[in-house]
Amino acid sequence: MAVNSPVPVAADLKPVNGVEIGYAEAGIKKPNRKDLLVMKLADTATVAGVFTKNRFCAAPVQVCKANLAAVAAGGAPIRALVVNTGNANAGTGEPGLAHANATCKALADLLGCAPQQVLPFSTGVILEPLPVDKLIAGLPAALANLKQDNWFNAAEAIMTTDTQPKAASRTVDICGHAVTMTGISKGAGMIKPNMATMLGYLAIDAKVAQPVLDELVRHAADHSFNCITIDGDTSTNDSFMLIATGTGSLAIANTDSTEYLELKNAVTDLARTLAQAIVRDGEGATKFMTITVDDGQDVEECRKIAYSIAHSPLVKTAFFASDPNLGRILAAVGYAGVDDLDVTKVNLYLDDVHVAKDGGRNPDYREEDGQRVMKQSEIVVRVKLARGSASATVWTCDLSHDYVSINADYRS
Amino acid sequence: MAVNSPVPVAADLKPVNGVEIGYAEAGIKKPNRKDLLVMKLADTATVAGVFTKNRFCAAPVQVCKANLAAVAAGGAPIRALVVNTGNANAGTGEPGLAHANATCKALADLLGCAPQQVLPFSTGVILEPLPVDKLIAGLPAALANLKQDNWFNAAEAIMTTDTQPKAASRTVDICGHAVTMTGISKGAGMIKPNMATMLGYLAIDAKVAQPVLDELVRHAADHSFNCITIDGDTSTNDSFMLIATGTGSLAIANTDSTEYLELKNAVTDLARTLAQAIVRDGEGATKFMTITVDDGQDVEECRKIAYSIAHSPLVKTAFFASDPNLGRILAAVGYAGVDDLDVTKVNLYLDDVHVAKDGGRNPDYREEDGQRVMKQSEIVVRVKLARGSASATVWTCDLSHDYVSINADYRS
Repeated sequence: MAVNSPVPVAADLKPVNGVEIGYAEAGIKKPNRKDLLVMKLADTATVAGVFTKNRFCAAPVQVCKANLAAVAAGGAPIRALVVNTGNANAGTGEPGLAHANATCKALADLLGCAPQQVLPFSTGVILEPLPVDKLIAGLPAALANLKQDNWFNAAEAIMTTDTQPKAASRTVDICGHAVTMTGISKGAGMIKPNMATMLGYLAIDAKVAQPVLDELVRHAADHSFNCITIDGDTSTNDSFMLIATGTGSLAIANTDSTEYLELKNAVTDLARTLAQAIVRDGEGATKFMTITVDDGQDVEECRKIAYSIAHSPLVKTAFFASDPNLGRILAAVGYAGVDDLDVTKVNLYLDDVHVAKDGGRNPDYREEDGQRVMKQSEIVVRVKLARGSASATVWTCDLSHDYVSINADYRS
Repeated sequence: MAVNSPVPVAADLKPVNGVEIGYAEAGIKKPNRKDLLVMKLADTATVAGVFTKNRFCAAPVQVCKANLAAVAAGGAPIRALVVNTGNANAGTGEPGLAHANATCKALADLLGCAPQQVLPFSTGVILEPLPVDKLIAGLPAALANLKQDNWFNAAEAIMTTDTQPKAASRTVDICGHAVTMTGISKGAGMIKPNMATMLGYLAIDAKVAQPVLDELVRHAADHSFNCITIDGDTSTNDSFMLIATGTGSLAIANTDSTEYLELKNAVTDLARTLAQAIVRDGEGATKFMTITVDDGQDVEECRKIAYSIAHSPLVKTAFFASDPNLGRILAAVGYAGVDDLDVTKVNLYLDDVHVAKDGGRNPDYREEDGQRVMKQSEIVVRVKLARGSASATVWTCDLSHDYVSINADYRS
């Protein structure tokens, strides 16, 4: 059960003209579940993406990067995306790369394009060979049900330990142009994206030039998926893809325009909703925490401290227990690696409650006030450093018995 | 129940001539438990220590550093140590410092020395005022039962969430001199020492000059307490103290001697036993893991990767479940932050089982072999990087339901 995150309603997910979606039950890991997704794009579409920085990046991530580089070098544009769950095709060496390329070739043959025009994605268990024959055998069924109105099924088809599909959609007005944008995401564990999250796809029907889209996807990822963490484990397969189908009336050729600024804000906002949906459905999560560090010298040190708090098992278990054992937060601030931090200037707030003042317990702090906030399902932790004007925010969840259960049983 | 770590037997803990130990039930947090420890030292003793690098270091740590600095500047030597549990006196600001100094003064008055000749230590909850009056009121009772043969009681008196006391003792021959050494340690959570562990005390009856002891304590800490982690949370109170009472026949004036090398090895070995005892009794621990990274360019990158594995909640829960979901280890290697790591050269072993070969699954690896090792209570994870000749080892434990329970309930 995700924290304050209702299951999306299929009828609320607006089709994006230029994206057709098909899915299948390919039996990759288990029978009778959607585990294969194909997204077929209009000829007018541009695609940009960001990927995990894990050195053990998965074979499909390597193929995605190569195929996007081919487009950048003047090659034919991307025409389809294919996603499987049940197997990450990571830690699989050369055979893994061959499997990812074989997947692209099989889909390309069915669609009548080149293999380099297909982007592959995988998610699931690491270090096990991809059952590529089952995957390829499932492609015709996925193509047979291609339609624009399939976003809810797409969100379901990419789930692994997620308890519910994650999707969001809106139509925004950008300087008089109605732009439709719909996105899906997945992920519940091994979540500390370092470029993007496990899997996220966001399509808009504007026409966006490739260099603009490249900048837009980086900005959106940096302010959404790159600000979340569940367990600090950066996945081997993180990918966030932004698709601009070029079918609507809005066209953006460069970043120096009001249209671009408004589109950037709208896309980033939707990406943030998708990213937060991952945290709300974090493995075993019972609470959603916003960790904000203010008044730092630079964003990097603010992020260091925010992640130090967000990753501390002691902080996360205290939130699970609704126990205002808030000295644990100070300890995490202290070991974050900001070596010249003057702790006598640090202030800590829990929502509106001023817990620590100038490095020590606030004399006016009352345990019952901390207790009141800790019982909430949404909590804002704010640390003020009093050494500059930079800020950073990270979203995370608590650490519960269910996290241990889910990850002790994941493969069984 | 600590992993393969029997409760020490009181009779096995050898008195160290020159150290008298007293304890009391001061009721600092709860009644009827030993929570106050005093160690009174011979006039011939030298003392050296290493402390947490957490910026929120506790008030007693600050006082310890100041009092040891006073000795180094030519002041009178340290004559006593005083330790309380139940309250960390950390995140307590100026009042906390005043409480730590008041503790030193009260004990100094009873012993007839200066307050600067006393070192104070605290462990327990952070961000709560130290009940200094109760502590001071307990000192006469602690002094009333001072005796050399009290090491087991000392180990009990410093416990917090520890399930059992931690102590070890041995007599070694150093170039013909019999040297007796006995040590105690405590800690079970908030354990990722960055200079030393929560609390460790080791006494030897040799005579060791102050500069030599300063080097010896750093070496011993770097090869013992600084190689363990339970939850990655570096405490505010970590302290490891080495006491040389000067009552035995061995005397060491400089580091350039066979005697020093042999003593260094013996002290480091005992410190390692005490450090590993902390991991074996890690909160909720059911397994003891040795993580070794070989063939790196330097020790720092080997430690980065070893800690990345040791801190991964996904790796730790897989060990708890005895599930050979070993791709999680590769993922942790990949995100450790060694940016130029060539993963196609990485090899992974679980005890004698070759799991990953040149970055991918070893074709000869059989699931049942991984399963066999994962069921053991002691497991060696070995990663070979093939990029140099440096190595590092870290000891850690698994992440279980009990870790969550213990830390969700710690203050109640």
